[in-house]
Amino acid sequence: MTRRQEIVRQLTAHTTGSPKPEAQAFAPANVALCKYWGKRDADLNLPVSSSLSISLGSLGTTTGLRLRQGADHIMADRLELSPDDRFCRRLSAFLDLFRPDADTGFVVETRNSVPTAAGLASSASGYAALVLALNDLFQWQLGREQLSILARLGSGSAARSVYNGFVVWHCGASDSGMDSVAERITGEWPELRVGVVIVAGSEKPIGSREAMARTVASSPFFDRWKAVAEADMHQLREAIGNHDLELLGTTAESNAMAMHALMLASRPPVLYWTGATIDVLQRAWALREDGVPVYCTIDAGPNVKLLFLDEAEARVREAFEEATIVQPFGE
Amino acid sequence: MTRRQEIVRQLTAHTTGSPKPEAQAFAPANVALCKYWGKRDADLNLPVSSSLSISLGSLGTTTGLRLRQGADHIMADRLELSPDDRFCRRLSAFLDLFRPDADTGFVVETRNSVPTAAGLASSASGYAALVLALNDLFQWQLGREQLSILARLGSGSAARSVYNGFVVWHCGASDSGMDSVAERITGEWPELRVGVVIVAGSEKPIGSREAMARTVASSPFFDRWKAVAEADMHQLREAIGNHDLELLGTTAESNAMAMHALMLASRPPVLYWTGATIDVLQRAWALREDGVPVYCTIDAGPNVKLLFLDEAEARVREAFEEATIVQPFGE
Repeated sequence: MTRRQEIVRQLTAHTTGSPKPEAQAFAPANVALCKYWGKRDADLNLPVSSSLSISLGSLGTTTGLRLRQGADHIMADRLELSPDDRFCRRLSAFLDLFRPDADTGFVVETRNSVPTAAGLASSASGYAALVLALNDLFQWQLGREQLSILARLGSGSAARSVYNGFVVWHCGASDSGMDSVAERITGEWPELRVGVVIVAGSEKPIGSREAMARTVASSPFFDRWKAVAEADMHQLREAIGNHDLELLGTTAESNAMAMHALMLASRPPVLYWTGATIDVLQRAWALREDGVPVYCTIDAGPNVKLLFLDEAEARVREAFEEATIVQPFGE
Repeated sequence: MTRRQEIVRQLTAHTTGSPKPEAQAFAPANVALCKYWGKRDADLNLPVSSSLSISLGSLGTTTGLRLRQGADHIMADRLELSPDDRFCRRLSAFLDLFRPDADTGFVVETRNSVPTAAGLASSASGYAALVLALNDLFQWQLGREQLSILARLGSGSAARSVYNGFVVWHCGASDSGMDSVAERITGEWPELRVGVVIVAGSEKPIGSREAMARTVASSPFFDRWKAVAEADMHQLREAIGNHDLELLGTTAESNAMAMHALMLASRPPVLYWTGATIDVLQRAWALREDGVPVYCTIDAGPNVKLLFLDEAEARVREAFEEATIVQPFGE
């Protein structure tokens, strides 16, 4: 039994009922304000440092699930995918952890409320929605912290997408990762807005798993990252507690730049930005110079997310007509 | 007497003859393959780490010099500058170190063989040419290592521009900086080419002195920089000795990315790149993917310098029509 199978067995062994005919669940995309970058265990997706995110309300993934005899059928945004597709193979390998027996497959129907290519960490909302749907289908009745462990086995940042609002994913210390769970932290902030600016879609030069591994192996600055993340986590929690947008924004922006700096210093360098990424950054900074409190963060891709308050929304909409603006704490 | 004055006195006290009526000198621009970033002494421009550059042949600054009664007259590219100009005030403050008496001024005529705005470290070639002209005017008959000390007092990287070819500027260890000198290292490499790609000129968001100071004060990664630079110096010297373009190019490229990573991780972040900078990087990397050995380096600004050999020149010219191509070891 692999370590991953052992974790699933431990969390689901109590289940008595039989599977429901079908289940469906939604999970939001999330934007990390303190980034997850670097694994201490690649098999269990255990991070070197804790991270903190904001979930994106109704932007995310809805996943429907039922069992069938035979191989998996996977449909993404109403298109049936070939079992040879890379996405499908990864998903089926994950589903192997939960398959009642070798002859049983899953029918998975997944729909994203934003284009998958939008770089909105669709693997985060995707694996989180899948685990929530599995919990319903198999009637495990697990709590969210336990579900965050299962989602993490699919994709690290999926651990944070099992919640709405502000979420901390603890790096934990144990080898099993049973203490590397996500939890929602208190703090509603109805005025907070996130603007998602999609820049001209070019394919990522390198997947984030590989980029992370290269950073850990070769970036001369990586040994300083854990301390940076810890200090930023502290500041972000203070900012959330005080509804201090300037502290939240400057910390999130600096944390994102530090993560991209780690990658840039890797050998060979990893650069996710395109020219348009920098143009968006410069436009946001010019707007801030002009008195509009708006801050940027960038995940492992070229797109920029803007952080601001409702009172700046008109100015942001004017400056970034292409932005999708999200209210993380609802309409 | 200030520490700077003491250094000038120590180096020039032996002079017996009277000044010549006029003098003129040329110094080349230089591109650092291992960057100078971070000072251990801001007054004497003493660096934290050693650096290595290639001088750009005939691209640089020619400076004419003579004495006059009264204030300094400074002409740059045939335009007389106002004494209130920031550039003039800095230059006159430097010339104070060499003024025979308070009533004597200098007439300085400086001409750049590339536009000043080209980001070709015109302060490097400018202060180097000025010190070479001062050496001739006052007949100090100083050696190049001593001249590199005086040029450094004007601008750190000017220490390297008193030579052609490959140049090492030693960080030194003494408080006086008398061991922080530049020397030319052996190694002619006639096939080597440097392409200078000027991207749409936007003003620098922050001067390099201030950016350096902010990096030292706030970049969480700065304590690792000296070790990075030392390892890169070693590899570059090996590459020069073996005429190994791949080692030279990958090391120079990684070193430049690490320097920009340091800046990006400063708080607040320092970003010299524009969207066009990234477009040039991506084009160069695409060309390399296509089998053309071409490598990039970027100083504290938005422009990109390409490193390649004569045999790739046609392909580089085709891909970068806007590039100025330099032969560091002559026609």
